[in-house]
Amino acid sequence: MTVAIVGAGPGDPGLITVRGLELVRDAEILVYDRLVAHELVLEAQRAALIERDGLSQDEVNELLVRHGRRGRAVVRLKGGDPFVFGRGAEEVAALEAAGVEVEVVPGLSTLTALPALAGIPLTARGVASEVTALTGTSADGGDLDYERLAQLPGTIVIFMGLGRLEHIADNLILAGRAVDEPAAVISRLSLPDCRIHSGTLATIASVAESAATPALVVIGDVVSGRQFLREATL
Amino acid sequence: MTVAIVGAGPGDPGLITVRGLELVRDAEILVYDRLVAHELVLEAQRAALIERDGLSQDEVNELLVRHGRRGRAVVRLKGGDPFVFGRGAEEVAALEAAGVEVEVVPGLSTLTALPALAGIPLTARGVASEVTALTGTSADGGDLDYERLAQLPGTIVIFMGLGRLEHIADNLILAGRAVDEPAAVISRLSLPDCRIHSGTLATIASVAESAATPALVVIGDVVSGRQFLREATL
Repeated sequence: MTVAIVGAGPGDPGLITVRGLELVRDAEILVYDRLVAHELVLEAQRAALIERDGLSQDEVNELLVRHGRRGRAVVRLKGGDPFVFGRGAEEVAALEAAGVEVEVVPGLSTLTALPALAGIPLTARGVASEVTALTGTSADGGDLDYERLAQLPGTIVIFMGLGRLEHIADNLILAGRAVDEPAAVISRLSLPDCRIHSGTLATIASVAESAATPALVVIGDVVSGRQFLREATL
Repeated sequence: MTVAIVGAGPGDPGLITVRGLELVRDAEILVYDRLVAHELVLEAQRAALIERDGLSQDEVNELLVRHGRRGRAVVRLKGGDPFVFGRGAEEVAALEAAGVEVEVVPGLSTLTALPALAGIPLTARGVASEVTALTGTSADGGDLDYERLAQLPGTIVIFMGLGRLEHIADNLILAGRAVDEPAAVISRLSLPDCRIHSGTLATIASVAESAATPALVVIGDVVSGRQFLREATL
């Protein structure tokens, strides 16, 4: 038996992979994030259910190793994709170090799936041929390098940036980015209360003031193709 | 009836979404890329099958609009994710301009899913907190801006770069990137003949000389976590 690290996708239960759902249905132990769709957790009819929240990452790793070693069909069901601003790699490393076999089933990543669902292509011929993704604070908790970010030629995608969006947008403009560059906030997409807020670097913080988390910020000319963009509730 | 633009994922038929497979099974018209898994095409038992290759993008758009207007259940099944270095946005735009309703079902993107399947996280705490994706040639067909790329602090992912890998790696080194920076080529991943080639910027072009397309190039310290990396055939 192996431990499967499965990405649940952005929220809508229909957006898990066929293989991921098969593993959930056959699971004996399901360790799941609170953000995962409840419908998916209910698919694990044979499984003991363990909610991850409240456990430290070390405790999660230890739990997966312990049940994996006992030969149980363990599924670790994570929101979004476990390997982009997730901590799936740490869980894989802990399992491999303990000699437990691992199957990785990626999920639709927030990075690519949310813009697609919002009708915003990350790249588009003649518009953007490069995309950069980062979080709203740097790895050491400090501020971002706005001078460097202002020089990026393509689409910029910011994870966990909603709370600091005014600060980020202002500093990108100060560093030379155009005030009228299109920007969007994709809030709770694929969930029933999803919304898309769009504006420019100058306006996006106020336009998206009421946006709820989780939210993704997308900056660049790809946002301006309004024929791609379904505004407000999808 | 709507036209659905569905991403098939990286190759393994189990990596399509549950919603995507449901749409394929109910399709009356299936327009599919040659690279899509044959097993998925066979799921469309009720559908007239139209292979996309050999048609121009304009012809594909026109085909989708024509059948969509007739109220047929049309599915456009594309390899990978239609919205990252794909042309899904052009198809959505053509359909919306013609007043045909569109449903978008993203697929697992090559950008995020192939590294995950290879055991390479695109970001990892303390290793890389930013990722940039681009193609091996610039949008105008010219060369890349190596001076700028050499300054990127995070992971670099190159689509369609295998044929020019020696040139790209050499120029990144000349522009100041470390010769011993880890690099990998993920070749045909999730397909039966997949392989992962790993080395450094200095060695990757020769290490991956025999790699087959489609292939993704990943450059950065995330590649060096060898505990994450399953070498050669998965």
